[in-house]
Amino acid sequence: MDHFNYKDQQLFCENLSIKEIVEKVDTPSYIYSANTFKHHYEGFQKAFAPLDPLICYSVKACGNINIIKMLSEMGSGFDVVSGGELFRVQQGGGDSSKVVYAGVGKTDAELLQAIEAGIAFFNIESEAELENLIRLSQSVNKQVHGALRVNPDVDPKTHRHTTTGKRGNKFGVDIERAQKVFKDYGNNDWVKLSCIHIHIGSPVYTVDPYVSAITKTLELIDTLRKQDFTISSFIIGGGFGADYLTGQSPSAADYAKEIVPLIQNKNLKLILEPGRSIAGNAGVLITKVLYTKQAGDKKMVIVDAAMNDLIRPAFYDGYHFIWPVSVDKKFEIDHRSQDIAIEGTQTVDVVGPICESVDFLAKNRALPPLKRGDLLAVFTAGAYGFVMSSQYNARPRAAEVLIDDKDVNIIRRRETYEDLISHEK
Amino acid sequence: MDHFNYKDQQLFCENLSIKEIVEKVDTPSYIYSANTFKHHYEGFQKAFAPLDPLICYSVKACGNINIIKMLSEMGSGFDVVSGGELFRVQQGGGDSSKVVYAGVGKTDAELLQAIEAGIAFFNIESEAELENLIRLSQSVNKQVHGALRVNPDVDPKTHRHTTTGKRGNKFGVDIERAQKVFKDYGNNDWVKLSCIHIHIGSPVYTVDPYVSAITKTLELIDTLRKQDFTISSFIIGGGFGADYLTGQSPSAADYAKEIVPLIQNKNLKLILEPGRSIAGNAGVLITKVLYTKQAGDKKMVIVDAAMNDLIRPAFYDGYHFIWPVSVDKKFEIDHRSQDIAIEGTQTVDVVGPICESVDFLAKNRALPPLKRGDLLAVFTAGAYGFVMSSQYNARPRAAEVLIDDKDVNIIRRRETYEDLISHEK
Repeated sequence: MDHFNYKDQQLFCENLSIKEIVEKVDTPSYIYSANTFKHHYEGFQKAFAPLDPLICYSVKACGNINIIKMLSEMGSGFDVVSGGELFRVQQGGGDSSKVVYAGVGKTDAELLQAIEAGIAFFNIESEAELENLIRLSQSVNKQVHGALRVNPDVDPKTHRHTTTGKRGNKFGVDIERAQKVFKDYGNNDWVKLSCIHIHIGSPVYTVDPYVSAITKTLELIDTLRKQDFTISSFIIGGGFGADYLTGQSPSAADYAKEIVPLIQNKNLKLILEPGRSIAGNAGVLITKVLYTKQAGDKKMVIVDAAMNDLIRPAFYDGYHFIWPVSVDKKFEIDHRSQDIAIEGTQTVDVVGPICESVDFLAKNRALPPLKRGDLLAVFTAGAYGFVMSSQYNARPRAAEVLIDDKDVNIIRRRETYEDLISHEK
Repeated sequence: MDHFNYKDQQLFCENLSIKEIVEKVDTPSYIYSANTFKHHYEGFQKAFAPLDPLICYSVKACGNINIIKMLSEMGSGFDVVSGGELFRVQQGGGDSSKVVYAGVGKTDAELLQAIEAGIAFFNIESEAELENLIRLSQSVNKQVHGALRVNPDVDPKTHRHTTTGKRGNKFGVDIERAQKVFKDYGNNDWVKLSCIHIHIGSPVYTVDPYVSAITKTLELIDTLRKQDFTISSFIIGGGFGADYLTGQSPSAADYAKEIVPLIQNKNLKLILEPGRSIAGNAGVLITKVLYTKQAGDKKMVIVDAAMNDLIRPAFYDGYHFIWPVSVDKKFEIDHRSQDIAIEGTQTVDVVGPICESVDFLAKNRALPPLKRGDLLAVFTAGAYGFVMSSQYNARPRAAEVLIDDKDVNIIRRRETYEDLISHEK
């Protein structure tokens, strides 16, 4: 569900037409819907209410400080994976005591920054990291809390690039090894190991892998408790899907229906880390058609956004639904699917200006006839969109714009040529 | 060939030890060798001297303005693919009249910028673009020169992401279509079509695909000349390989040996666009070991550089040789190969701190035993390294450092947390 809908042959973001927004902000631009963010955040809050969870929005999905500010004001905590993301949370006015910090390569400077900030949990990804955190906590005389990340070794059936909870992965420790870690470090005073963290991959479109992973982890927690270790919290990392196509992903309620009964009455504080499922559908990337051409048997639509703006199609084989911003009546769609069969569409590749064959946004896609100057919306671009963007081919990065009802807020200005070289002088 | 060699158990860049450089610039950092750049540039100059070519260094490979300045002072022209790259050339003091401009999605603003700059050639990638360029040239009353990019439809046998000259590609026009383009536009006064451009892919490790492509294109040029079109120049796009492993790539002389005889006496000004072959071996990425860990049956070495710093392994399956900066005597290697078999090495994955499984620099690699704090050199990182870097996971981008004999020049300072959000306030 999102607030990007067609009305009077125009795509609207909330109560403004995209066409009107683009007149102010130009292309390519990321346009976010504040109320879609809020809707998805509240969805998790309501669905998991019986467990009174702490929802830690995953900053890596879409980390603009204005997004952080908005979610923070709704009570959200934050899942960060670097000192830079913790800095973002702090700059956005987020509450450090509601921050969990994951990541296999935390530097000393980052650990000290997070100790100083008083975050809720450090996800412990290895014994070496744990020893380092103990050393650093002791050096500044501050006790911290640790969440041991375990790999439940379930297959989330997602892209090989983004499977994270399998055995032999770089993340966390294998579940069999967890008991040994508790035996060696479970009574340490500097890092109180009082939480277990799991993360199985992203995006995960079925609830089953969560059920398997949680069941395995609860067994571990039982065992550890029998050994007199205090486990008070349980972090279920994100991976919850987003609707790249209408109805593709389970809702927060669907996930909760299976997950809540497993954890209820276990005396565990639940922490959830949704990122994609909150931000994904809350953003579109708007791009303009520069040229069309025939190449062999293919029709190419060349647009002004490229893989430096949105790398998911090239990098993850990520599918993004694309449709024009202004359409004839018959193309005014009310759902997004891979097999839109409206008479008059043409099969095209949508490609960017970057000098690589892999620079495409869509291949063999049925689209209404397009001409130079037409605007296209690349949907479900709110997560892993702008945050992964680069300046490759010396392309200044896009603007980020947050729409709230009829308000247009440029929350990150478009980069200039001067920005490209400002650190090189 | 490059100026990164082991001496006294230390890796040197030119006449400075990397260890000493890192004490000044920290990690992760891109460290470039000025004299390696110069060596490879001169290699092309000498090898193709019988044709007196214009060498247009491909800015997209490594575009720091200080690199441009250095090459410009040696007489280099530049191959750009965006207005941002043209701006880089101008800021680096490059000569605009030696610039060729490729790319399928040039915007009006970019075309006007390049017309104003008085560049040598616009590579024409489609009829729609050509018509637009004619319109814009006329609007500012300036005649420009066009190089029609044709797809010779040869297989360069490189990664599917980077094959560029096959039929049905987004680039240029199919070779059969070229005659029609000349028939329609070959006598236009605003855009003088006087050049043919080809680019077949990158990296291309054999000379044969060039020979096939050039032979096909020369036939086209012959045909066009018989039809009274004036073809005075021929641009052979880059794709020339770099030595990711010792001796992997043909030298400029190897390419020239086959290419020069084909073009000699054809009354064609040759323009070459080497990028990777000049910059690739001129740079290393230096990173520090943060942690080591056992994950299932795998040994993981976690370093402070990630796929946001160097995306080639994750994105192109790109192989980069990796070796420690400081080594025991027996590990002091004098060549780089995939099957280094020195007793005492261990097979490890080298991975970065980013929260994705795909964030790796090397898999199943035999390396000397490593411990926290050790420095590693990721070789042949000069091309498509820093230019593709992003701030994903809110990671400030690395520093770029240019070494000339014993001089250390920080040509791009490391980014700060403040830089991450400076456009968001």
